[in-house]
Amino acid sequence: MSTSSFDHPYLSGLFGDEAFAALFTAKADIDAMLAFEAALAKAQAEHGVIEHGDAEAIEAGLATFTPDLDALKTATARDGVVIPDLVKQMRAAVGGAGQAKLHFGATSQDVIDTSLVLRLKAAAQLLEKRLAALATAFARLDTAFGKKPLMGHTRMQAAIPITVSDRIAAWAGPLARSHDRLRLLLADGFAVQFGGAAGTLEKLGDKGPAVRASLAHILGLADAPQWHSQRDRIVAFADLLSLISGALGKFGQDVALLAEMGKEIQLTGGGGSSAMPHKQNPVGAETLVTIARFNAVQVSGLHQSLVHEQERSGAAWALEWLLLPQLVVATGAATRTGLQLIEAIARLGPASEQL
Amino acid sequence: MSTSSFDHPYLSGLFGDEAFAALFTAKADIDAMLAFEAALAKAQAEHGVIEHGDAEAIEAGLATFTPDLDALKTATARDGVVIPDLVKQMRAAVGGAGQAKLHFGATSQDVIDTSLVLRLKAAAQLLEKRLAALATAFARLDTAFGKKPLMGHTRMQAAIPITVSDRIAAWAGPLARSHDRLRLLLADGFAVQFGGAAGTLEKLGDKGPAVRASLAHILGLADAPQWHSQRDRIVAFADLLSLISGALGKFGQDVALLAEMGKEIQLTGGGGSSAMPHKQNPVGAETLVTIARFNAVQVSGLHQSLVHEQERSGAAWALEWLLLPQLVVATGAATRTGLQLIEAIARLGPASEQL
Amino acid sequence: MSTSSFDHPYLSGLFGDEAFAALFTAKADIDAMLAFEAALAKAQAEHGVIEHGDAEAIEAGLATFTPDLDALKTATARDGVVIPDLVKQMRAAVGGAGQAKLHFGATSQDVIDTSLVLRLKAAAQLLEKRLAALATAFARLDTAFGKKPLMGHTRMQAAIPITVSDRIAAWAGPLARSHDRLRLLLADGFAVQFGGAAGTLEKLGDKGPAVRASLAHILGLADAPQWHSQRDRIVAFADLLSLISGALGKFGQDVALLAEMGKEIQLTGGGGSSAMPHKQNPVGAETLVTIARFNAVQVSGLHQSLVHEQERSGAAWALEWLLLPQLVVATGAATRTGLQLIEAIARLGPASEQL
Amino acid sequence: MSTSSFDHPYLSGLFGDEAFAALFTAKADIDAMLAFEAALAKAQAEHGVIEHGDAEAIEAGLATFTPDLDALKTATARDGVVIPDLVKQMRAAVGGAGQAKLHFGATSQDVIDTSLVLRLKAAAQLLEKRLAALATAFARLDTAFGKKPLMGHTRMQAAIPITVSDRIAAWAGPLARSHDRLRLLLADGFAVQFGGAAGTLEKLGDKGPAVRASLAHILGLADAPQWHSQRDRIVAFADLLSLISGALGKFGQDVALLAEMGKEIQLTGGGGSSAMPHKQNPVGAETLVTIARFNAVQVSGLHQSLVHEQERSGAAWALEWLLLPQLVVATGAATRTGLQLIEAIARLGPASEQL
Repeated sequence: MSTSSFDHPYLSGLFGDEAFAALFTAKADIDAMLAFEAALAKAQAEHGVIEHGDAEAIEAGLATFTPDLDALKTATARDGVVIPDLVKQMRAAVGGAGQAKLHFGATSQDVIDTSLVLRLKAAAQLLEKRLAALATAFARLDTAFGKKPLMGHTRMQAAIPITVSDRIAAWAGPLARSHDRLRLLLADGFAVQFGGAAGTLEKLGDKGPAVRASLAHILGLADAPQWHSQRDRIVAFADLLSLISGALGKFGQDVALLAEMGKEIQLTGGGGSSAMPHKQNPVGAETLVTIARFNAVQVSGLHQSLVHEQERSGAAWALEWLLLPQLVVATGAATRTGLQLIEAIARLGPASEQL
Repeated sequence: MSTSSFDHPYLSGLFGDEAFAALFTAKADIDAMLAFEAALAKAQAEHGVIEHGDAEAIEAGLATFTPDLDALKTATARDGVVIPDLVKQMRAAVGGAGQAKLHFGATSQDVIDTSLVLRLKAAAQLLEKRLAALATAFARLDTAFGKKPLMGHTRMQAAIPITVSDRIAAWAGPLARSHDRLRLLLADGFAVQFGGAAGTLEKLGDKGPAVRASLAHILGLADAPQWHSQRDRIVAFADLLSLISGALGKFGQDVALLAEMGKEIQLTGGGGSSAMPHKQNPVGAETLVTIARFNAVQVSGLHQSLVHEQERSGAAWALEWLLLPQLVVATGAATRTGLQLIEAIARLGPASEQL
Repeated sequence: MSTSSFDHPYLSGLFGDEAFAALFTAKADIDAMLAFEAALAKAQAEHGVIEHGDAEAIEAGLATFTPDLDALKTATARDGVVIPDLVKQMRAAVGGAGQAKLHFGATSQDVIDTSLVLRLKAAAQLLEKRLAALATAFARLDTAFGKKPLMGHTRMQAAIPITVSDRIAAWAGPLARSHDRLRLLLADGFAVQFGGAAGTLEKLGDKGPAVRASLAHILGLADAPQWHSQRDRIVAFADLLSLISGALGKFGQDVALLAEMGKEIQLTGGGGSSAMPHKQNPVGAETLVTIARFNAVQVSGLHQSLVHEQERSGAAWALEWLLLPQLVVATGAATRTGLQLIEAIARLGPASEQL
Repeated sequence: MSTSSFDHPYLSGLFGDEAFAALFTAKADIDAMLAFEAALAKAQAEHGVIEHGDAEAIEAGLATFTPDLDALKTATARDGVVIPDLVKQMRAAVGGAGQAKLHFGATSQDVIDTSLVLRLKAAAQLLEKRLAALATAFARLDTAFGKKPLMGHTRMQAAIPITVSDRIAAWAGPLARSHDRLRLLLADGFAVQFGGAAGTLEKLGDKGPAVRASLAHILGLADAPQWHSQRDRIVAFADLLSLISGALGKFGQDVALLAEMGKEIQLTGGGGSSAMPHKQNPVGAETLVTIARFNAVQVSGLHQSLVHEQERSGAAWALEWLLLPQLVVATGAATRTGLQLIEAIARLGPASEQL
């Protein structure tokens, strides 16, 4: 259980982030998929597509549903998606007449993509809080040390003195702009996916758009026509994640260079060495660089997945599955590490006796 | 003169775009740099930093300036940037007392980055027109064939029938959203860079912000504090370019698949073959896929360049120079090719006799 | 525990590979690190650097050692590497006078990198078997269907008929060449890392090289001077992994296209759909494309990590940790999926009645 | 003519390399394509496929052939490849009965890929000389300064002293191994491509392999069955290019850090600044980092192009055209810059008065 450093028993100490990782457990995915099916039944009952009694039976059945994960794994290997078997399991849990109405008019992608969007939106909300905390922390750092001088460096050479404030502005500025970008995306960038077999909601007749709007409302998502083969909003969010980790990577690189040159920063709690107990390694700073470069790589794969052929590309779609969760968790870890690194800065600018 | 297919004597027939490429010639760069220096002198005269007479001498001198490109090449190899030698050449052209006031308080990065932004903004404006034309062309295609049936395909298998309109919506939708994103960027995403040696405008005293605002106004750019080590706006624009080419890549991939299956599309003007004169290759469709994948690769490098150490990273900054011009021209070529491909669609949906 | 699809409770049905994933559990890493420390003590005793009794005490202590994973996680978050705390734990397990001799002259990177190489070599050996099995399976496919005609397609258009053999040769050829490349790497590409604090084995005096040679011999690795900041062999192996998955991606893409066009292939056991029970999705074929594109993305990050500053880059080194395990497991999964896909081909070339 | 920095009037001072760029001019490509056609005619005459007189007419006609580049550009835009029109032009130049025999049994890809391989092999040979020169230059540096102490740095912190020799070994080692890799590729990695319309040499009957062997011999390439959809050898060469630039990127990064810390290196001829004449920017060192990161990005695109569908993928193939020439020229420029940077090191290790 540790192919990924983000989930690894000890490497997750560096690269994990529990709050963000919790959004990408199998449980979180299944919970969101159950929420989709219950909300769909409710929305369809609202618009007379199915009976209210059926919707209630579905809600009740799903409330106590426990998935058989082994069966889901075998079925996913066969079907390429978890849904056919999960729907079968859910229907068995619902039982009675209601079971036939579960998942009515929907297809695998509706469930999987909406589950994804629910969790990406939750990630975006978490991220907003982290960005606010980073802004506060940088402001505090500025209050403490902003007026101190700092040697400006251009092209890896001492240039002319600037102030600590100038440097902090270069760290905080891109994060503030990405905070704005995130607010924009939160306004309408997270939309329900509901299109049925090939996107046309063919089983809902003229009630398709109304059911979809209700579904979106119940789930707290934006309403939008099906977008199963239009992945631009997903990729735009991924880009934003990497803009955030990239800004933190610049912060980390700068701190690592300050630490290497040694006179203008004092860090607490740096990493120990097995061979050289005297060393204080700027571990958090390096971790920020690592994550920035990792995300910069992953983002390329998301852009590749835009070439999503026809109504649904098994290949391009699954590529997102391999990339997105880690991109999100890595970004979460970067914000967590960034906050810790700011806290660890005991001094920025020269020590008083050097002035 | 053909390491790059975008500039290549014959491959540019496929991958070039003259309107976009014109923004990245050495001449266009130098013209924009001259515009910066003239505007800077004017703005500084406005605020009493230099004499009006000096500003006029600078404007006049630059109006007839011709660069010595060989000297610039040699100097760039030595200095890593073209500016020190270009400033020397410009001063010689201005002559007299004014020459000492040219480039006053500025540094290489101010000139190069502002020149870049001027040209990226021009590219964004060109792109806006192309996106509008694409929207119109897709709408026309929809009018002509939208009501025809089309076999929906999911996971590379025939699914259920959709309409041609449904498919066109999947092509046009992401482009429309990227058009909106582009409008947002055009509103304030293209800002002047002016910071002096290390970003503090230390030679302008308290007049720095006012001079910068005037400079921005003269050049038609947004005003913003120096951002020389904050590259997020550049990268966000690059991301958008790849979102556009990615959407067109999906269009191209779909057309290539339609052409391979053969019954639901008729293309005119396809590519010939040296061995099989009977073939009609869907060259434009393939080109769109190629460019989408190319841009998806390049975007990774832009994200890497966010790790821009200290006040100016020679390494990260120059990485942009290698990536951005081609990303822009490739995106231009994708929009050009997309428009031609729409035009080349003589029929979408089955031929009448098949219905 | 599912940020990564490779470890995910049900997505691992598609993307996991148990044999390869077993090499990247925390347990496998720790076991390899214990093997390093035991072998180091033995090698040092052999050359009189430490006492034989100490080496035996170390071997005995490690034989029953159980790590405290929670402590390792906390310590890794602080130190950036697991080793300082793991060494402390191991020493406590060894106890007595021997404990001071454990890890003598070594540093974190020696242990971590050698553990990595031991497991990469095991992966390479597994992979060799898979490539041999793929060669056999393709040969069998060729025997069964090789002489049948197949429509050759160039640029997404029917060209002229070829044979099934011709197509199989295009699938098997690159894998055969990569098999040769793998054999070359197995000959000397997997070398022990042993350098001490900064690579100079300064604590071993003139016995350094001899101890290192013995250490390599005991561990079954090649002997080579320390290479802690020279990552080319790691990256060359990663490149090879992607060459393998890329060749299988071409196979998958071809099968998906054959399946879409429908007449020249018959697949068994395809994936079901929740909305369209009649469909047979070519899931394995798509999975191969997904993995090929995933690995093509990751390989970029490995090449970025070549810029490994000074004697040890915390940032570049840890980037490998995020990328390599998944690249290996993905490649394993691709070979597994490739073998299954060949098995699933019930017919290649037209059905008899079409001839 | 400057979308690419590699061809740019002044930026090529940094990123260009005339010897390597000369291999990727339109002229070099056309010359190699003419060489293919002449050699093909000769090989076919040798084996009685065409008349000796026709082969001589072809050779004579091509000897004085001048292409119409404008026509080639227009035709490439239409056909996706230059060959149909180029063959037409070549036939007109040959005239008489011989013209019908030009390009007999061949297809576009044969000509374009063989031209590529001829030039990649020339690049590999140039690169071999550069790697030899780098080895010599590093050895000289070692002789001059190798015994001096140097502070070892791990994780951006001073660790323990090493020697200059230790550091040089970390720079030269990966290049030496890549030199070995290059020799291996030169032995049989550059093979003629000759397959005809769909790879089967269907027009040559049983003489196909013999003609291909003669063709390879005349052109100085390895003989191999057609590989038009098997791109692994191309990608393996690209990987090697990036291994080389990556090793040089580490060298550059180390020199930049030494220059920033300032006491253990002295560089001559560094870059000037327009704002701070006192600075000596380590331009060459930064350029090496830039190129390493650029190539690390591009290599991803080459791996994507392995998913080369069917007998010929217009999309994946053309992606190589966009990536490979720049990867080669960038690597050439990196070796050139690396050699200059070694020359520019006036001292490595502390100044005598510091010892």
